[in-house]
This record gives sequence, C-alpha cells and structure tokens, in this order.
Amino acid sequence: MPATQINKVVLAYSGGLDTSVILKWLQQEYDCEVVTFTADIGQGEELEPARTKAQAAGVKEIYIDDLREEFVRDFVYPMFRANALYEGEYLLGTSIARPLIAKRLVEIARETGADAISHGATGKGNDQVRFELGAYGLNPEIQIIAPWREWDLLSREKLLAYAEQHGIPVEMKREGNKSPYSMDANLLHISYEGYDLEDPWVEPGADMWRWTRDPQEAPNTPQEIELRFERGDIIAIDGNPMSPAQVLAELNRIGGEHGIGRADIVENRYVGMKSRGCYETPGGTIMLKAHRAMESLTLDREAAHLKDELMPRYASLIYNGYWFSPERNMLQAAIDQTQSVVNGEVRLKLYKGNVMVTGRRSASDSLFDTSIATFEEDAGAYDQGDATGFIRLNALRLRVAGRKGRL
Amino acid sequence: MPATQINKVVLAYSGGLDTSVILKWLQQEYDCEVVTFTADIGQGEELEPARTKAQAAGVKEIYIDDLREEFVRDFVYPMFRANALYEGEYLLGTSIARPLIAKRLVEIARETGADAISHGATGKGNDQVRFELGAYGLNPEIQIIAPWREWDLLSREKLLAYAEQHGIPVEMKREGNKSPYSMDANLLHISYEGYDLEDPWVEPGADMWRWTRDPQEAPNTPQEIELRFERGDIIAIDGNPMSPAQVLAELNRIGGEHGIGRADIVENRYVGMKSRGCYETPGGTIMLKAHRAMESLTLDREAAHLKDELMPRYASLIYNGYWFSPERNMLQAAIDQTQSVVNGEVRLKLYKGNVMVTGRRSASDSLFDTSIATFEEDAGAYDQGDATGFIRLNALRLRVAGRKGRL
Amino acid sequence: MPATQINKVVLAYSGGLDTSVILKWLQQEYDCEVVTFTADIGQGEELEPARTKAQAAGVKEIYIDDLREEFVRDFVYPMFRANALYEGEYLLGTSIARPLIAKRLVEIARETGADAISHGATGKGNDQVRFELGAYGLNPEIQIIAPWREWDLLSREKLLAYAEQHGIPVEMKREGNKSPYSMDANLLHISYEGYDLEDPWVEPGADMWRWTRDPQEAPNTPQEIELRFERGDIIAIDGNPMSPAQVLAELNRIGGEHGIGRADIVENRYVGMKSRGCYETPGGTIMLKAHRAMESLTLDREAAHLKDELMPRYASLIYNGYWFSPERNMLQAAIDQTQSVVNGEVRLKLYKGNVMVTGRRSASDSLFDTSIATFEEDAGAYDQGDATGFIRLNALRLRVAGRKGRL
Amino acid sequence: MPATQINKVVLAYSGGLDTSVILKWLQQEYDCEVVTFTADIGQGEELEPARTKAQAAGVKEIYIDDLREEFVRDFVYPMFRANALYEGEYLLGTSIARPLIAKRLVEIARETGADAISHGATGKGNDQVRFELGAYGLNPEIQIIAPWREWDLLSREKLLAYAEQHGIPVEMKREGNKSPYSMDANLLHISYEGYDLEDPWVEPGADMWRWTRDPQEAPNTPQEIELRFERGDIIAIDGNPMSPAQVLAELNRIGGEHGIGRADIVENRYVGMKSRGCYETPGGTIMLKAHRAMESLTLDREAAHLKDELMPRYASLIYNGYWFSPERNMLQAAIDQTQSVVNGEVRLKLYKGNVMVTGRRSASDSLFDTSIATFEEDAGAYDQGDATGFIRLNALRLRVAGRKGRL
Repeated sequence: MPATQINKVVLAYSGGLDTSVILKWLQQEYDCEVVTFTADIGQGEELEPARTKAQAAGVKEIYIDDLREEFVRDFVYPMFRANALYEGEYLLGTSIARPLIAKRLVEIARETGADAISHGATGKGNDQVRFELGAYGLNPEIQIIAPWREWDLLSREKLLAYAEQHGIPVEMKREGNKSPYSMDANLLHISYEGYDLEDPWVEPGADMWRWTRDPQEAPNTPQEIELRFERGDIIAIDGNPMSPAQVLAELNRIGGEHGIGRADIVENRYVGMKSRGCYETPGGTIMLKAHRAMESLTLDREAAHLKDELMPRYASLIYNGYWFSPERNMLQAAIDQTQSVVNGEVRLKLYKGNVMVTGRRSASDSLFDTSIATFEEDAGAYDQGDATGFIRLNALRLRVAGRKGRL
Repeated sequence: MPATQINKVVLAYSGGLDTSVILKWLQQEYDCEVVTFTADIGQGEELEPARTKAQAAGVKEIYIDDLREEFVRDFVYPMFRANALYEGEYLLGTSIARPLIAKRLVEIARETGADAISHGATGKGNDQVRFELGAYGLNPEIQIIAPWREWDLLSREKLLAYAEQHGIPVEMKREGNKSPYSMDANLLHISYEGYDLEDPWVEPGADMWRWTRDPQEAPNTPQEIELRFERGDIIAIDGNPMSPAQVLAELNRIGGEHGIGRADIVENRYVGMKSRGCYETPGGTIMLKAHRAMESLTLDREAAHLKDELMPRYASLIYNGYWFSPERNMLQAAIDQTQSVVNGEVRLKLYKGNVMVTGRRSASDSLFDTSIATFEEDAGAYDQGDATGFIRLNALRLRVAGRKGRL
Repeated sequence: MPATQINKVVLAYSGGLDTSVILKWLQQEYDCEVVTFTADIGQGEELEPARTKAQAAGVKEIYIDDLREEFVRDFVYPMFRANALYEGEYLLGTSIARPLIAKRLVEIARETGADAISHGATGKGNDQVRFELGAYGLNPEIQIIAPWREWDLLSREKLLAYAEQHGIPVEMKREGNKSPYSMDANLLHISYEGYDLEDPWVEPGADMWRWTRDPQEAPNTPQEIELRFERGDIIAIDGNPMSPAQVLAELNRIGGEHGIGRADIVENRYVGMKSRGCYETPGGTIMLKAHRAMESLTLDREAAHLKDELMPRYASLIYNGYWFSPERNMLQAAIDQTQSVVNGEVRLKLYKGNVMVTGRRSASDSLFDTSIATFEEDAGAYDQGDATGFIRLNALRLRVAGRKGRL
Repeated sequence: MPATQINKVVLAYSGGLDTSVILKWLQQEYDCEVVTFTADIGQGEELEPARTKAQAAGVKEIYIDDLREEFVRDFVYPMFRANALYEGEYLLGTSIARPLIAKRLVEIARETGADAISHGATGKGNDQVRFELGAYGLNPEIQIIAPWREWDLLSREKLLAYAEQHGIPVEMKREGNKSPYSMDANLLHISYEGYDLEDPWVEPGADMWRWTRDPQEAPNTPQEIELRFERGDIIAIDGNPMSPAQVLAELNRIGGEHGIGRADIVENRYVGMKSRGCYETPGGTIMLKAHRAMESLTLDREAAHLKDELMPRYASLIYNGYWFSPERNMLQAAIDQTQSVVNGEVRLKLYKGNVMVTGRRSASDSLFDTSIATFEEDAGAYDQGDATGFIRLNALRLRVAGRKGRL
C-alpha cells in the first residue's frame, strides 16, 4: 500500500482499457473511493459506455460532461488569437485540451470532497505535465496519482493480464482491430504517435489518417468559404452565425473533406526527448490561415510584429502545460488587447490540402488605405519626398558604422 | 539643374522603359556620365538587349554581371538558415536581392570613380530603402539619386511622353501586352503588386501567375524528392550534388510544376502603409519546409526555440533593408552557430500545391533517440519516476501562486 | 511665405527666448493667429511671466495648465510599472513628458479651432519626434510647424539678432548668467546636453548639477524611508498617503538631499547619432529601486522575467516617441495585468548617492514562503528528492547533445 | 547500501565540515574510493588543509587546482560581455563558478577512471542543478551522488553527531565563531543566505558583510580609476596591463575599500521558491558599469538594444545552470560577435558605494561624432530637414490608426 493515505480520488476516465485498469488499480492499491470523470471534448466517441463500465466497477459518483463549447470558447479561441504554432508546425491540439480536463478534475474533487485526482498519462509524455501543473495551480493541496509512474504494468501484456485477472472486460474485437498508434482526439485535432512513426525516416501508412481525406482523393473542385471574425474569433461561416464549437466542427468537416490539416513532424517534448507525431487539424489549419489574413488587414504593423515575436513563447507555454500560469495570463492580456479591431470577413479557397486566402475585408477596421498604397497618382495622400529623410536618418548610424569599416 | 554636382553615376539598369528614361534623365538633369549595371539574379530575362540599349544611349561603361551563384550562396542560403518568414507568410524574395544590387552598385562606383548611384525604385515602396541603406552602409560618402522622388514623371503617360520626346524606344507590342501588375523577379521568386490587387477583397485573375501551375492543373501524381543538407544548406537533390543556384533553379522547376509556393497576402511596408502582394516562391517554399524538418531532427530544443523567437526580428531586418547592419551580423552569428549540425536528408512529397515531409534522417547528427522516446519498454533509458520531481518542482511556484488565488 | 496655409497654430510656449522668437516668427511667416500653451509639469519655473509675454506679443488665447498630477499619474507611474530603463541607464525623464504635451497641444487645437501645432524642438533631437508622432497619432489631420527645421536662425547670434530686431525682450542678465548647457526639466528629472559634454571623455563641472547635492556634500547620516505600494504605484511615504505628484516631489526632495540619481551617459538618439547627456532623477531612481524590490516579493518568477525581457523594447518605444501607439498599448496591457498583486511596503536607506533596500513585505501578496526556502528542516514543505527528477529531465536533452560531443 | 554500484567517485571537496562528512559517508555508504577535488577560484581560503584532511581520510588521489585565471578568462569575462544581471540586480557570482567546477569534476573523473561525481549542494538550492546539468552535458554517462538529497543528516545536530561518531575533526573554535549565514565566495563575489535573512523585512547586521567596507566608513575622498578594454574585456587598470584574474582581484580590492557592490535582494530560484540573498561583488559592480560605458561609445545602437533584449534570458540561463548548453553557445556567439569593437578606456570615480562614469573614449572605435551631435552649427554634417520625412513616414501608420480612433 502506498505511503499516502487517499480517501477519494477523481479519475479522468475514458472507459477504455487503460483507464479501466487504473480504476481498478486505484480501488485496490489505495483502497479508496473513485469518482470517474468523462468529458466530451469532441473526441468523437460515445460516452455512455463509460458510465455503464464505471457503474459496473462500483463507482458511485460518475461525472459525464459535455465540455465542447467551453473547450473551444475558453481555450481554443484564445489560443488562436495568438496564431500559436509550436516549433513552426504543431497547432497544439492535445496541449490545449489538457488544462480544461485538469480544471474539471479539480472542480469535481472540490464538489465530491476528494483529496486526489488521477489520470492515465504515461511518465514519458507531455500530458502528465499538463494535467498536473494545471491541477497544482488550481488546487495547491491536491494530491495526484499517476499510475503509469507508480505501477509495474509497463507493457501491454501485463496490462491485459491485470485486466483479465480482475475481470475487466477487454473488448477483444476492438483491441484486435485497434490502431497500432497511440492516439488522442478532441474537437481541434487527432494525433498519432508510436509504432512505425518511431522511425522518423518512415512514411506512415495511408490508413493511419482518420479525419481527413488523402489530398489525392479529395474533390477535384475547390470550395470557397467565407468566415466572419469578431474580436479575433470566428462567429459565422458563409454568413451563418455559429457557436465556437459549431464553427470548429463545421470547419473540421469541410477541411477534412478537402484533405486539409495533415502534419508529420518531429517535435521536442518538455520532458526532454524528441518524438515523432502526426496530426490532423483540419479546422484549426483553416482558422490559423484565416485569422492571420484578418489580422493582416486590421492590425497595426508593430502590434502584429510584437505578436509574432511573442508567439513562440506563448506556444511553448501551452505545449509545456502552463495554461494556468501568471505568464500565460500576462501574454494573453497583451494578445487580447489587440483583438478588438480584428473584425471582418476572410474568403478562402479549399482544394486538396490547400487553404488559399483569396480575399479579406473589414468594413469597420481595415487599415488598408488604397489612396496611400496605390502605384497610381495619389492626389497627395503620400509625399514621396518624405522617404528621403526617412532613409537618410535611418541610414545615419549605418554610415557612421560604415566609416569604421564595420559593414 | 539639381543643387548637387554629380560627375558620374552608376545606374541599376534593366533595359526596360523606366530605367531607360532614368538613364536619359540622369544624363540631362545632372549633366553627368552614367555607368549602367545590369545583373542576372535569375529574373529570367535576357541581358544583352540592355547592353545594346545602353550603348545606344551613349553609355561607355557597361556592367553586366551574372550574380546568381553569389545571390543564392551569400544571401538566400544564410537567410533560409533562419527560417525567415515576414509576417508569417512572405519569403522575402525581393527583399533579399536588393542588398546584393546595392553592394555591386557601390563596388562599381568605386571601380569607375563614380560619386553617385541611382535606381528605379519608387518613393512609396520598400526597395528604395533597401537599396539606399545598403549603399550608405557600404559607402557612407556615396550620393544617391532616386529619380522617382525627384522628378515629375509620376504617371505612365508622362513617362511615355518623355520617352517619345527623347527618342527612347518603347517596345509597343510588349508594352501593349504587358502585364498590368508591377512585378519583380529573381531566382527566389516573382512578385505582383498593383492593378486589381489594390482591392484586398478581389481575387487576382488566374492568368496573373507566371511561374507556377495552378494546383488544379498540376500533375495528378505526387512526386517525391530527397534533399541533402550540409550545415543547414541544401547541397544535393535526389543524390545529385548541385551548386546553390542550381539547387534553387531546380527546386523552382519542380515546385512550379506542382503548383507550389503561391501566396496572396496583405503586408506592412516599412514606409508605413499596408499593401497587397502576390508571390510565387516554389523553390523557397520547399526549402523552408525541408530546412525546418532537418532542424527538427538535429537541433537542440532550446536552440531551435531561440531561433524561432529571433526569427521575426531577423525577417523584419531583411524586409526593412538592414541586411548590411551590425544587428543582422549579430543575429546571423547566432543562427550560423547552430547550423554545423544541420546535416542529413529530408524526403518530401510534392502534390498540387502541397509540400509534405515524409521522412528525415541524419546519420551523424540526429538527436532522435528511439530508445528514450519509445512507448514500449525502454530498458531503463528513461526513468519515469523522474517526471514526478520534474513536475513537482516546476509546479512549486504555481502552487504558491495558487494559494494566493491567482490562477 | 510658406506653401501651406495655416489659420491658427497652437504653440508649446515656455516664455523663454527660443519660443518667444518662434511665436513672433509664426505670426510673421505664417501670418496666422498663435495660441500659446504653457504647462506646469514640475519644471520648477513660474508660469505667469509666460502669460504676460504672450499677451505682450498679442496672443489672444493663452493656455496655462497645471499638468503635474496627470503627468505622474498617467505617464510616469505606468512607465515605472515596467521598470523602464533606456540602454540600461536612462530613466526617460524627458521622453515621458513629451506625449503629454503633444496630447494637450492637440486638445487645445481642437478647442480653439486651430489647424496646426508648433514646438521649439530642434531637428537633431528626439523631442521633435516625440511631439510629432504623438500629435499625428491623436489627430492625423493636424499640421505641424517645426521652426528649427524650417528657418535659418540656426545659431544663437542669429536668434538674438532676430529678437532684437523684433523687439522681443531678452533677459540679458539671465541670458548672461545662463547655464551653458541645453537643459530640460520636469517633475521626473532635469537633463543637460551640449557644451563641454560634447566630449565624452570630459567630466562636467561640479556646478552643472542643479537638483542634487554632490554625494560628497550630502548628509553623513543615512536616512531611512518606507514606501507603500498599491497595484505597483507608490501611494504613501513613511505612512503618509500622497497623490502621485506629491510622491514624486517628495522623493525628489529627499533624494536630492542625499545626492541620489545623477547619471552621465552616452545614449543613442532615435534620429541616428550618439549623444552625451547628464541627468538628475532623484525621485525616479528611488522609485525604480523600490518598485523592483516590491515586485521581487510579490511577482511570480516567470511574469517577472517576461517583464524584464520586454522592458528594453518598452523603454525604446517611449524613448522614440511611441507612447501613443498600438504596440505600447499592447505592452502596457501585459505589464498592468501583473501589477494587481504588487502591494506592500519597501524600506530603503538613502546615503550619499546610494539607494539601499533594507526590507520589503506584503501582508496580502508575498510569495516568499519561509517554510519552503529555509535552510533549516522544513517539516515536509519541500521534498528534496523531487530535485533529482527535476534535474534529470532538464538534463536529458543536454545528455543527448553531450553524446554527440556538442557541449 | 544504495542500489547503484559505484567504484570511484570524485568529490568537490572544500575541507569543511559538510564535505568532510560527505567524504566519509561516500566511503561508507557506497563502499567506494573517493577522489577529492579542491579548487582555488579565489574564495580566499587556504587549500593545503584540505589536502591534509583528505589524506587523513585515506584519500589517495587528491586534486588541488588553481583555477582563478581560467575562471575569470573563460567564465566571468564572457558573461560580462553580455552585461548579465539576473532579475535586474544579481551579478551571478555563484552561478558562474559552478560550471567550471562541474567541468573539472568530469575531467578528473575521466583522468582517474571514476564513474561518479559528488558535491555538497543541498536539495533546495540552485547549485545542485548547476553542478549536475554541467556534468551531465559534459559526460552524459556520469553518475551523480548528491548526499543532501539521499541521506537523513538534514540538521546540523545530526551532521555534528555523525562527524563525532566517525572521528571527523570539527574545528570547534571555528564552528563556534562561525558566521550564522550560509556563504559562498569566489573571485567574483561572496554571498550570504539564511539566518535572519529569512525574513525579507529584516535588515542584516552590519557585521555580516565581509568584503566591502560599510559605505559610511569608506574613504571620504573619491578615487578615480581608468580601465582599458580590448574586445570587451578589461586588460589594464590605470595603464597597468593585468591578467583577467589580476584585474578582478584588484578591482575587488579597490571596490571593497570604497564600499562598492553590496546587494540585498529577494530572488527566484530555479527550483521554484523565492529566497533572500545578500551579495558583495565589488569588482563585478565596477566592471559592469564600465563595460556598459565602453559599449555606449562603440556599439551600434541596434546591436546594443538587441544585446539588452537578450540579456535577461542569457542571465537566466547562467543562473539556472545552462552554461554548457546549445542555447548559451548560440547567445554567446551573438554577443561575442559584437565585442571586437569594444575597445578603449573608461574613467570612473569611486566613492562610498558609488561607481560614477566620468569619461569614456576610444581612439579606434568610437561612434560618437561630435560634428553630427553638436547643438552648434554643424557645417552640413546633418540635414535637419531629413527629420521631417523621417517623422512623417514613421507617423504614417499611427495616422492611419488614429483615423480609426485607436490612439
């Protein structure tokens, strides 16, 4: 029995084999009551089987929450205001969902009087960090049980043996047909790790991808869509107002159809190693492209550049699990301060994996001034002579440096 | 006559209408000798007509240089080591060519004893700044004549009238069929501005694009290529060693065939206004994607992140004309310091506008360690228990902040 | 007569020789009405003589405003929340006053129906930029007259001759005894430029300094003071609540007595050259030290570090005249977001030029936790074993790099 | 007995009580041979007693190295080129010494065939991290024994009992008179932690400070010194060429005499808590001030600003123990690239805690151009009219933003 005395623990429970084993293991090892928490964040699986299984395992307090709107509204949307991209490629689909789960675990612990939370993330990955940093920040006294770092069920065989031994139903057919990849899905993306991806020179099989069509099999005709932005967030598609989760679901549907949003990358985990991951983020890929286009018309140059310089750090914070942190709050304040003017429409063409911006406009907030930018005569909107002084003063220090032979 | 006495001026001369008028205008207004300089930087036009025209205009000193290798080796390649992207979208095709032209103008001025240089960039654009900052830094005493900021030939009609009046041959047929866009081309890209692009909501006509196929008309079969990197630079395609300019030309050919590298953006000019530009950068688009992939395998995480944070500033420096500057030199030193390990191969799939990485490897410098990253048992390469302490200490300040209710 | 037709201009008017000449020159050259605006921002000069002189010059609309509270509350205090320091040394005393003057000039222009503003800053300095960027941002259609860039009165002799010729009273005695330095003063500082400072190897004479005692002549006994902070701003000295301007005036008095706040630096002007400046900022020097001490106890580490990294850019923005800009607003939002917890007291010892922090406390917001930090036994507040995992995971990428011989 | 089998371990050994107990404990617990390593890095203690004690403890391989020159030349000087200051106050005196010790530990392990190293840093501090990150990077296979994280001798009483029990001589007199503070010293500084400093509101006693005079007791007459820089490093004091360690020792002597370099701060440790530290860094305080002054004359503005923006991160890297890391190497390359021009002399006045720059000059590399900066007529070196265009183009985007009411 572990050193720590736990009375009640809230488990992030999917109903799958791993967390079912954890549920049992917690009951046994800690001799404590387990509360299960299952969230719908758009992963595309039915949640009711989780309830049935939890009941069968003797769980008395079962939480099943539909968090899709909260997820997109309070996590995905704020993140996309920053144009966040980790290491130039990754749209942070898994990273951004973890703090929400952590937040609910802590809330449920408070509601049920539990003194601990538990999750099924392994000891090698980023997710354990994201769950636990979030939970510790929101409830500094919470206890956290991470079975993968404690137990000795470190191979699939041992896990299956434990399940059999304890009467945990293993859906054999499903396990048999199961994807060989380690996957994670939510409204923003689905990810794949492990198996043949562990050799970064090997291309994954075509059947790995689940959410998007192969670009080669996508429609031969491009589709045009128009997105409306308000304060940096998308509020309508083709003129139809939608809630945040509706927007993302619809963009996933359209993007997936057109083979948009696949990524195959080698990334640096917070816990220190490189790993290979494949991602499908159809809606997010469209959102990023569109948001940048909307900003290009409405944001001041220096605010936009400052956002670009802060973005890699913001993305790292989220990747590393610091969503609930003073520094993320600080950066978010800066980012959100700029978004009140990011209003208007962006028109995009989607075609076989491509997202192409074909137009952007803002009735209220465009900073694009044709009378200044035109190559035609501009009736005095811009005095070309000003450029001489501009250049000469900007050159002054370079000329002084040049005289010293430095350039 | 202008206030300044100029004896000899080196003109960046394309042989086109604008610079032909400038040539004449300089001879008349400044009553000075003009040296012409025409560079091949891969713009894809014949240069000998420029010689003939310059001779016809009475020019005695005519420079026609093939700068393609120098352009790619000393400008494009160092810039791509930084993964430079201006405002998240623009590959800096025009920006990176200007300092080379400025450098040659100043060198030729020195060789020919000229006291001034001149160029055909307008007073509203970035190129005047790039030419002039470069020239002032390399020769602080040089004088610069920017006719577009001085004369009154501010419309095409006036320019044509001046040409006719001074016997400058206007190739009517060509002028008649001429693209309505303001264009610039070199080995890295071709750009389009003006005309219907001045309304950022309007999609340009399909016949604007010149270098790349429309993705819809690109081959239906993907093509796979393998690029070999040495110290961050591509040195071979599909196993065939090539010079820098050969690499870029070949990637342009392949990329153009597959409809790769189109961009349609609204950007912020250094002189203060927003402008709309369309770009075709087929080879550069492939290079950026491949370079990031090569780095993802070989660069340390924190060095990579630092590069990402510095990149927007580096890109702005180049966009704004500060290639020859102490701060660019400083950043380049940091970037180049990281590239000695960026060695290996990247395999890409090109298909209808998409550049997809399908593999990356480095026999000598990969930091990818399967024994650590694996989801299988790792024989002790990584102690999952370490994660507990890692998380708990990283959480310590968050817990302290959480106790104050800050998160 | 100038090309531009001006009907009425608001002049930033001190009543001194320079702006008196400008007043006359504007009336003559532009044949327009002049509105004078004289502000008390704590420069320590009487303002009523300015009224008399303006009346004598026929000015009908005379504005004399006490802006001291607005200056400290809305400009100095927000800036000090950022710990702003330009080039590691300069507390931005002049820079921070200019946008306030610009704001009032534009407001008065609106009130009086003036179409232009004017100021007495020279064409070589930063102040012209600060005035004009501020004014253009707040009223994009305003016209700006900068006489020093237009007229030919470029030497003191010419100026005096013009004054004599136009009956402008030159206070000979004052002019005779006048400091040979170019000076600027407000509640935050007094600055000196020019004269013997133009040789950066020469130490200025002891009689240059006006606000602070020579440290050698300061009291031999240290003085202790206690400052109370609320949301990052000082609200009381030694327990006595004070308004912002009162705080700064009192700290100037005390600091000046103790020889605090002298600086002798070479700085980089925005217009491109280096210049030598000497500054006395007694109160500001104390405020910066105290604010950092208050933050050291109450701010989270990562928020504090992020502030430190953003600070140089924030300081440059203010130095360069971009107080009223989207990017300053964005940074200020980030900075202010952190300050709600910067509450408590700091105790300082002042002695012959030194400001020494001797204590800091915060009843509500201290993050200092003795039970964790202690070198004594801590009853389990901190598990030293956690450090092993923390170090090992942070070392992981270094070990991988080390295996490649990179370190 | 511990799980790991260790054959030989190199111990960072001071000869004091703690490391003497560790020496014994290692011999007993690990049943292994111990190699002692004692370094002179200027801490000001005799090293031969350490030899005698090690011999008495049965150590056969005893290393005693004078590392003072290497310390200053290869660690302190490169760091000062960056103007490194952690959290605005701390000159990183302890942090910069640790990687050198780590490097020698690893080298000695290699020379002696040891498979482990050990140190006496506690589990709550930064030093364990600095030692271990350095060692792991330089020898990824090294084993590290950190007794303070392993044993149960967590109080002074237990330590003394262990010493007595194992016949370790405790110098009672010294222990009796011992400072109540936890101290660390090297050529760069001496630090104090613990005891009454654990209450950040309490001022430490006057007798805590050891290296510097109380400013009140420092000489009443200022002293002037002149420092000569070459490539950013000080190479002579008052015209006398000196080695790096000589320079620092001499500046410590002079600075200490004048009460320079005391700091009393609350800092954020890498392991997550805040702690209070007092520091005396007399020579370093002078060096930083002088180096900034030398750079102010010789560095280009934008290079200097970029250095300022990168500095906080560079300082954090060193504080956190990442001296031997790809990212420090990258930043150092950028910093060093700028220093070739940092040549010349700086004159300083030292007086009762103050370091005042009174002059700076550079025969070869000054960028200060009086003809440009002067307030007198400049014979055309600078065209004031250029400022108009400079301001107007910089204002353009602000005017566009202003028209939207954003400023």
